[in-house]
Amino acid sequence: MPVVHIYAWKGFTEQAKKKVIEGVTKVFAELGIPKEAVEIIIHEIPKENWGIGGEPASIKFKDIRTP
Amino acid sequence: MPVVHIYAWKGFTEQAKKKVIEGVTKVFAELGIPKEAVEIIIHEIPKENWGIGGEPASIKFKDIRTP
Amino acid sequence: MPVVHIYAWKGFTEQAKKKVIEGVTKVFAELGIPKEAVEIIIHEIPKENWGIGGEPASIKFKDIRTP
Amino acid sequence: MPVVHIYAWKGFTEQAKKKVIEGVTKVFAELGIPKEAVEIIIHEIPKENWGIGGEPASIKFKDIRTP
Amino acid sequence: MPVVHIYAWKGFTEQAKKKVIEGVTKVFAELGIPKEAVEIIIHEIPKENWGIGGEPASIKFKDIRTP
Amino acid sequence: MPVVHIYAWKGFTEQAKKKVIEGVTKVFAELGIPKEAVEIIIHEIPKENWGIGGEPASIKFKDIRTP
Repeated sequence: MPVVHIYAWKGFTEQAKKKVIEGVTKVFAELGIPKEAVEIIIHEIPKENWGIGGEPASIKFKDIRTP
Repeated sequence: MPVVHIYAWKGFTEQAKKKVIEGVTKVFAELGIPKEAVEIIIHEIPKENWGIGGEPASIKFKDIRTP
Repeated sequence: MPVVHIYAWKGFTEQAKKKVIEGVTKVFAELGIPKEAVEIIIHEIPKENWGIGGEPASIKFKDIRTP
Repeated sequence: MPVVHIYAWKGFTEQAKKKVIEGVTKVFAELGIPKEAVEIIIHEIPKENWGIGGEPASIKFKDIRTP
Repeated sequence: MPVVHIYAWKGFTEQAKKKVIEGVTKVFAELGIPKEAVEIIIHEIPKENWGIGGEPASIKFKDIRTP
Repeated sequence: MPVVHIYAWKGFTEQAKKKVIEGVTKVFAELGIPKEAVEIIIHEIPKENWGIGGEPASIKFKDIRTP
């Protein structure tokens, strides 16, 4: 506890994923939760499978890149 | 708001994904929610990872195709 | 197939929920998927549990209502 | 993008929820993602509905409290 | 690992929840995964929030009860 | 009903997936739920996308294998 599911566009670098895992775990650790209890799952979603405002992100945000 | 996660068998065409994104967004727009607030995530699942009635869909529904 | 999880702020009327269930099911039926195969789960989330831009929606969008 | 679902035992204070929303948003902002694009949903789960090692947390961790 | 999210109609007895937690954990233990690594979250959904075939389960399956 | 989402490290054999689908379905069948109503979705997650204790499982548990 907690379990954290993160849904993001495909393409985060390995370094960015590590920062997400470290950073989110720290948020809970600062509330007094043991780090070992924090489980984080990153789901990478192709932009054509992600819709915003009725359009796929692959079209609507075709020039935006992931970190 | 809302966030919609759609889990479906792998293999929807790009055209079918677009129709899903447009159509589901419209359902919420018709209730008065701004289109830009609707976020849709399509998760494509291999049929061997989807169980129904105790069997993988890759066996039980091996002849059914996605749109 | 498909399974659809909808996450929305708490407070949709029973009528609005019915329209969501009918409308989203129809989107898939129009792609040739049997209506009986469409499963939809609506998750109602208190606005204080929903963060956007680093703030709870209960503060940031305190005057916006659900349909 | 991203959408973050956090599953935790019921009972976080309003203050703890705010810290989670602020802190997790900041993790992504530091990677260059606009804060407004970060959507966070906190799901509070009764301990009797959360199993670890084959037992409900309401029994196994009955003396552990949420922040 | 694994994390298991179970979505079911509201109303399972405490005894039924325990059996689900024990039973599902055992499935993974029999594959050689340590029991302590299995985390299970049961989400109870009101039948009016669950749609099948375009209708809420509260109408379509109004006489079916949970165990 | 129910819908079960299982999140596990990538790499389960086809045989292991079948056992999971059969076994988890049986847990619900033993509570009196019709097998045909049990829907199971297995999500395979690369270990570098799974964080425990602030570290990716690809580093922390680099020698542990899936069944």
